[in-house]
Order: sequence, then structure tokens, then C-alpha cells
Amino acid sequence: MPRYRVTLEYDGTPYCGYQRQKNGPSVQAALEAAVFRCTREEVNIGAAGRTDTGVHALGQVAQIDLEKAWDEGKLFRAINAMLKEANEPVAVLELAQASEGWDARFSATARHYRYRILTRVPAPTVDANRVWWVRRGLDADAMADAAQELLGHHDFTTFRSTDCQSKSPVKTLDVLDVERNGEEIHVTASARSFLHNQVRSLVGTLKMVGAERWTRTDVADALAAKDRQACGPVAPSCGLYFVSVDYPPEAL
Amino acid sequence: MPRYRVTLEYDGTPYCGYQRQKNGPSVQAALEAAVFRCTREEVNIGAAGRTDTGVHALGQVAQIDLEKAWDEGKLFRAINAMLKEANEPVAVLELAQASEGWDARFSATARHYRYRILTRVPAPTVDANRVWWVRRGLDADAMADAAQELLGHHDFTTFRSTDCQSKSPVKTLDVLDVERNGEEIHVTASARSFLHNQVRSLVGTLKMVGAERWTRTDVADALAAKDRQACGPVAPSCGLYFVSVDYPPEAL
Repeated sequence: MPRYRVTLEYDGTPYCGYQRQKNGPSVQAALEAAVFRCTREEVNIGAAGRTDTGVHALGQVAQIDLEKAWDEGKLFRAINAMLKEANEPVAVLELAQASEGWDARFSATARHYRYRILTRVPAPTVDANRVWWVRRGLDADAMADAAQELLGHHDFTTFRSTDCQSKSPVKTLDVLDVERNGEEIHVTASARSFLHNQVRSLVGTLKMVGAERWTRTDVADALAAKDRQACGPVAPSCGLYFVSVDYPPEAL
Repeated sequence: MPRYRVTLEYDGTPYCGYQRQKNGPSVQAALEAAVFRCTREEVNIGAAGRTDTGVHALGQVAQIDLEKAWDEGKLFRAINAMLKEANEPVAVLELAQASEGWDARFSATARHYRYRILTRVPAPTVDANRVWWVRRGLDADAMADAAQELLGHHDFTTFRSTDCQSKSPVKTLDVLDVERNGEEIHVTASARSFLHNQVRSLVGTLKMVGAERWTRTDVADALAAKDRQACGPVAPSCGLYFVSVDYPPEAL
């Protein structure tokens, strides 16, 4: 039974997230429908990360298990054609047969996210639903400085949704960079895995620092509190992009 | 009677173009309605360029003539608030009182456009309606080479819409650069002024070269023909951005 590894790009705006839900359209359901129309196989397509409602992906990774083996190029073109025909803003950027034992979720060694904040008085136009619009200026340097408190191995209970199903709140945050790019501030976050809503919780807290309402010490105190109530307001989903997933070379 | 110079950004997708039309929503009508709601003045807002249906702007420039003088910052914030409230994807990026005699259209010394082509098999998702999606690869170097034939002072009848109202088809094209950026090809065009549909006609013709269906000589022949029928297929509006307008320093 061949397994295919697919890299996905999608506009999260019209979806209730990656995962199939009873109450609305999902990326997973759109992709499974496209695969069915190509292959007549009913598949359950798992992915590296369960992005939330409105969260975008530039490099989500998923796995498709089929009964019948397909030529990679042919399957790649067929699924993309079906997604386009169905007018779903989901694209398969890469498709390859997976190595024995590779799993989109469990083989991942790192996940990379980017968050875009637009800081200006006028609302976004061309980038509507692509950025978090913050009308007041933010101090990106102060945000970058405070982010240092959050790096490393911690109990991230403060930055975890109450819906989070992870067994442990302890994670290792390897990267949390803040950079200004003109009118935008970009926050980059990398870890082996994240808690539910962790990136948006971290960004929402750093934004409080950028707005000079919190200090770096306040961020350290929030982390130490291990209390969801100590978190800053969670940043909206429209600014978040799931950028890429790393796997060990031998798994690919 | 004070005149205000405004720099505009907009998503052209929902509009029949900049100019007010009887048959659909326009950027001009959206902006005039927002100004009316702030000032109670009925204004006719002219702009540097009449962008077509679906064409975007990152730096269109327009002029607002008001009976009453306003504080610039207050008017800037008020118009943006009204545009946002009306859910129009139009933003005023800058607003300043204009110098005596300055005119958004007639004082302009250069207009700058960018065109984005996405060359890949999967359709755009996050960038839907923001790029021209071309499924096959294009040779950007060949396009850049052929663009040299179009630079300078020419009769651009071949690259002019039959609707064009310009008195003369003779224009001077100062810049026509083609550059690859990953999966995208960007075409940059600058001139004092352009004919109707000129940039999209030029891009459509260069795309024929990129697809190896036309040579540089074919482009030279098309220009020399001075015949609309000799033009390649006109590129779609969704990839075109009106980037900026230059004015002489003394006019600002």
C-alpha cells in the first residue's frame, strides 16, 4: 500500500482548519474529495499540523495512503486539477512516494511558523485576511528582546489553549525571532512541536510588549505563572502561516 | 479651495476599475462616498491613472478638492475609518495638502507598474487574484532580452486597446525589466504615461516569448506592424499593480 508525501499550500480563510469537522469545510475534506475524484479511493489524509480556522499554510505536509500505486507526476497534476476545478484554495506543491515508515506527523523533527503583523493606520487591502492589522506602531526591538525569555525548554501552560490535547505542556522553543520589514513585523517560531494556539498566544503576548503595555519582565512572569489567565490576548488566526516541516534525511 | 494629494492602495478585484462607472462599483465611487461621509462635501476625485477592472494599486495618486480646509492627520484617519467601515478594500496611505497648481494626472512625470506571473502547475491559493497563473514554465531570460526591442520612443499602436482615447499612440517606454523571483516572474514598466492596456499588452507579448512561441524578432516585427492584430494575447488584469507615480519636487 503506497504512501505519498504531499506538501500543501492553502488560504485558510474559508476553512474551519486543516482537520475534518462536522460544522464546516476543512482543508482535509477538500483534499480528500480531490483525491477521491482522481483515484476513486476513500482516504483519510493525516497532516503534520492541525492548523486552526483561518490559519494559512505555505508548506503543510500530509500523507496519502492509496491501494493502487500511481505515477508521481500524474497524481500530482490530477489532484491539483481537481482542487482547481472544485475552486478550493488548496494546492499540492510537491508529491513523492514516501519512504517505508515515514509519517507526516510522527517523523517530523521541526515545525516552522511565520506570523505577519501590519502596523499602520489604514486597513490592509491587497493583504486583507493575510496579516494581523494593528493600527498603532509597535516596538519590534522590544518584542525581539522579550522573545528571549520564551526560548528554550519550558512549561508553556500560559501559552496553551484550554482545548489543547497534548499530554504535556512542556515544549522546547528553538526559534522566536521578531523582525521589522517596512510596515510589517514578522515573527518566526520553530520547535519540534507546538501546543494548541501556542504561536498565536506567544505573538499576542509579544504584541503587548511592542505596544509598551508589558515589559520583558512581565513576559517572564507570565511564563513562570504557568496559568492560561496570565497570557496576553491571543493573536488572530489570519496572520499565521505554517511555513514548513523538517524530517530526518533518512525518512525522506 | 484646498486640494489634498492622496496615495491609494487597493485590491482591484471587486471593482470595475478606478473610474466611476454606471455598471458597477469603482474605487473612485468608494473613495468619494468615504470623503462625503467625513466632510459632507460631494467631490469628484481624479487620479493619476485609470486602472482597469481587477487591476490593483500600491501607490495610485489622486486629488481631493474640498471647500473647507482640514487638518491633514484628522482627514487621513477619518477617510480610512470610513473606508474600513464600508468594508471597501481601499486605503489612503498618505494624505497631504497639495502645492498650488499640482494636478495628480497632469503633473505626473513618471508612472510605475509591476506585473506578477506565477509559473507552476498548482493554482495560486494565498495569492489567488494577485498573480497571472501560467501552468507551464517560462524563460524569463528570453523575455528580458525581447523586452529590449520595446524600450524607448515608439508608435505603440500594436500594444494599445482599441478603446484607447489617447490622441497619439507614440510613447516613450523608459523601463521594461523582467526578473525571476522563485516561482514568479516580475515585469516592471515605467513611462511618463501609458496607452490603455499597454502594460498588459506588452506582458502578454513577452509571455509568448517566454513560452518559446515567439522570438525577439517576432516582438520587433509586432511593434513595427503598428497593428493591434499583431499583439500577443493581452495578460489578465489580476497580475497588474500600479506601484507609484513621480512628480517634480517643486510640485509637491
